[in-house]
Amino acid sequence: MSQTLLLPRWLLSMKPGEDTLENHGLLIEGERIAAVGPRDDLIAKYPQAMRVELPEQILIPGLINAHAHSAMTLLRGVADDVPLMDWLQNHIWPLEKKWVSEEWTYLGSKLAAAEGLRSGTTYINDMYFFPTAMARAAVDSGVRAAVSMNVIDFPTGYASGPDDYIAKGVAAYEQYKGETLLDWTSAPHAPYTVSDETFIKLRDLAEKLDIQMHCHIHETAGEVEDGIKAHGVRPITRLDKLGLFSERMIAVHMVHLNEAEIELMAKKGVHLVHNPNSNLKLASGVMPLKALEAAGVNTILGTDGAASNNRLDMFGEIRSAALLAKGITGDPTVASARTALEMATIRAAKAMGRADDLGSLEVGKLADVVAVSLDSIECQPVYNPAAQLVYVAGREHVSNVWVGGRQVLKERQPTTIDVPSLLAEACDVVGRMKAG
Amino acid sequence: MSQTLLLPRWLLSMKPGEDTLENHGLLIEGERIAAVGPRDDLIAKYPQAMRVELPEQILIPGLINAHAHSAMTLLRGVADDVPLMDWLQNHIWPLEKKWVSEEWTYLGSKLAAAEGLRSGTTYINDMYFFPTAMARAAVDSGVRAAVSMNVIDFPTGYASGPDDYIAKGVAAYEQYKGETLLDWTSAPHAPYTVSDETFIKLRDLAEKLDIQMHCHIHETAGEVEDGIKAHGVRPITRLDKLGLFSERMIAVHMVHLNEAEIELMAKKGVHLVHNPNSNLKLASGVMPLKALEAAGVNTILGTDGAASNNRLDMFGEIRSAALLAKGITGDPTVASARTALEMATIRAAKAMGRADDLGSLEVGKLADVVAVSLDSIECQPVYNPAAQLVYVAGREHVSNVWVGGRQVLKERQPTTIDVPSLLAEACDVVGRMKAG
Repeated sequence: MSQTLLLPRWLLSMKPGEDTLENHGLLIEGERIAAVGPRDDLIAKYPQAMRVELPEQILIPGLINAHAHSAMTLLRGVADDVPLMDWLQNHIWPLEKKWVSEEWTYLGSKLAAAEGLRSGTTYINDMYFFPTAMARAAVDSGVRAAVSMNVIDFPTGYASGPDDYIAKGVAAYEQYKGETLLDWTSAPHAPYTVSDETFIKLRDLAEKLDIQMHCHIHETAGEVEDGIKAHGVRPITRLDKLGLFSERMIAVHMVHLNEAEIELMAKKGVHLVHNPNSNLKLASGVMPLKALEAAGVNTILGTDGAASNNRLDMFGEIRSAALLAKGITGDPTVASARTALEMATIRAAKAMGRADDLGSLEVGKLADVVAVSLDSIECQPVYNPAAQLVYVAGREHVSNVWVGGRQVLKERQPTTIDVPSLLAEACDVVGRMKAG
Repeated sequence: MSQTLLLPRWLLSMKPGEDTLENHGLLIEGERIAAVGPRDDLIAKYPQAMRVELPEQILIPGLINAHAHSAMTLLRGVADDVPLMDWLQNHIWPLEKKWVSEEWTYLGSKLAAAEGLRSGTTYINDMYFFPTAMARAAVDSGVRAAVSMNVIDFPTGYASGPDDYIAKGVAAYEQYKGETLLDWTSAPHAPYTVSDETFIKLRDLAEKLDIQMHCHIHETAGEVEDGIKAHGVRPITRLDKLGLFSERMIAVHMVHLNEAEIELMAKKGVHLVHNPNSNLKLASGVMPLKALEAAGVNTILGTDGAASNNRLDMFGEIRSAALLAKGITGDPTVASARTALEMATIRAAKAMGRADDLGSLEVGKLADVVAVSLDSIECQPVYNPAAQLVYVAGREHVSNVWVGGRQVLKERQPTTIDVPSLLAEACDVVGRMKAG
């Protein structure tokens, strides 16, 4: 089995309790991490391994983007500075209705995969239509993804109604079952687009297939108010009665939460995805991260789609999560650099049900590894490499990425994607969208 | 006089009322902008000009960082995730006391100039000790700066007391008078470090020299409370009585403001510097940008120092200003992309007293020009180039920069600074700081 020995300046494993290591190496054997240890020891012990010197880099686990609508890269910047309902009803939905197809979704998802790799993202928890398109884009790009069996109760160009969405989702799942880069989620879109009956079907589907769930919940104050009008209770109360909350649930946004809801999330082991930049941009508000941390909830991070962020940049989310929680609460000790990094790595692996394989650089785990250069003028000097990743470095300092031991980014260029032809294709599609 | 014809894909002049132009060019003649017009017209009219093709770039005015402590790059990341007073008293002040000198300040300021140029900053409104060091660093780097005659009422390694600070500041001003890259400010540090008597002296100094003032005001809630305890009134009330507020005043932070104070700022024409990331990181809060905009106050943007941000990245501040104001107020239309860009360009030029020369790409103004590439995968597709600058692009997409017609950044490399030797010198100094 091929062996590659990565020899960075620093290594931040994200293993609980372990701080940044200096002059350590990491041995990749096949698709897994076979050793982590002092540089000289590994060189002596594995003389036959191919050596990769990374003299100004820090190695970290691959970042996990716990909420994205990948294909919406094709709608990046199509409408900014407008209210949510204007944005959805007058811009996003009409465009989606007209253009979204299997091939459009594949193209947009591949753009997202390329952007993600260039910013250190090795795993995308996606939610969109045409799951086979996302599955193909991830596999072709060499990036991991959790593909959604996404359901809303009304018809779209993709499916005619809830049963059709589910059938198509399950067919995609069956088609790609066994593909090592892919996980799957049972994904009711949101409380305001999905009926009780459909929620129950999707809960049972997740149980049956032993997969995670993925759902937008309590994104805006209006959603909570409307939910009370429609169902007599807040959406979280409604979903709790339907038995939706457990360690299977990845609940996205969760901006508007009362104390009892925070306690419920902790008690049920629900994973909460913070999307700081999307929530700011759409003026939804700020997730109460400090209170969630105090309650022991597993909080993780996502970018949301490129139409509402407009970057698929986990470095940006890590930084924003750390800064916002401090500024909003007046407490500079909350959301430390370490916490923010955990939210994008080890905590997210747990949320995806992949704690045994992903989220930290430990022997036996899959070799999803990111090298970040700290030698440029804007990253110097370095007092604390871990904090430097959060407060100083950006996606642009990601130099190399491996997914399952395969190098997918080399000196900032994806090795798996023909970028010029991908961009030409996107330019062509967007040109047609602009024209008509 | 030498002529250079810049030929970008797009040009955003930031001239009031003018939207993004496509296929236009900009002619630099000597240190000024001599023409802006359709590409083909300019090529025909100025055949002798040296042509610079920028086929995937957008030209914008140089960004103005309206508040920085440049030399603190050497303290970047020295202490994170700690409360403000712990940060100041146990980390920053002891290190400054031990290390800050003319040469240390020069070195740190030059690092800041290089980082600034790489992120499109062509003008730094600085506040620090040893003004001659900042003056030399700016001139040697080819970047514009407003150098501070900075005063606090207690002794430091730089000066023994207020009169000594003023004398040293004025001596530096006299020494560098006539240097075209430099402006000067009369800079009382803050209400909690400067007496009434010193404030009045600095107000009179600004009048006498016809320069702007630069002062931290109402950064934290604690500062306001302590000010009331010490003086019986809020700091802004105190400074207003001292006649400090006019179009000369650049008031930094201004996080904690009541309605009357916002009205006062509008009435007096004070310029308010928003430092969104520093204010979040130190848990100071968020400037009420929406209310300030509604009142017609001239709001601008700054990074603050690298010890509390930890980036000197105006793209980051522009994005954060636009996102934060929306998320905090629930109004997605506030702080539009255009407004956020104005805060870093044309509004900032006005604040610096340089509206005639800087802040927009207009004939007759100084040629401080930044080219930003929008061709990389994370910047595609482009629907609205101006919004793309705010919500999508980052400092890493700045490709070329001119200051006063001189090219100071070429393909992301400073032309004026020997970066490897600068970094080696910083590494040496920081090594000594870490050791002792």
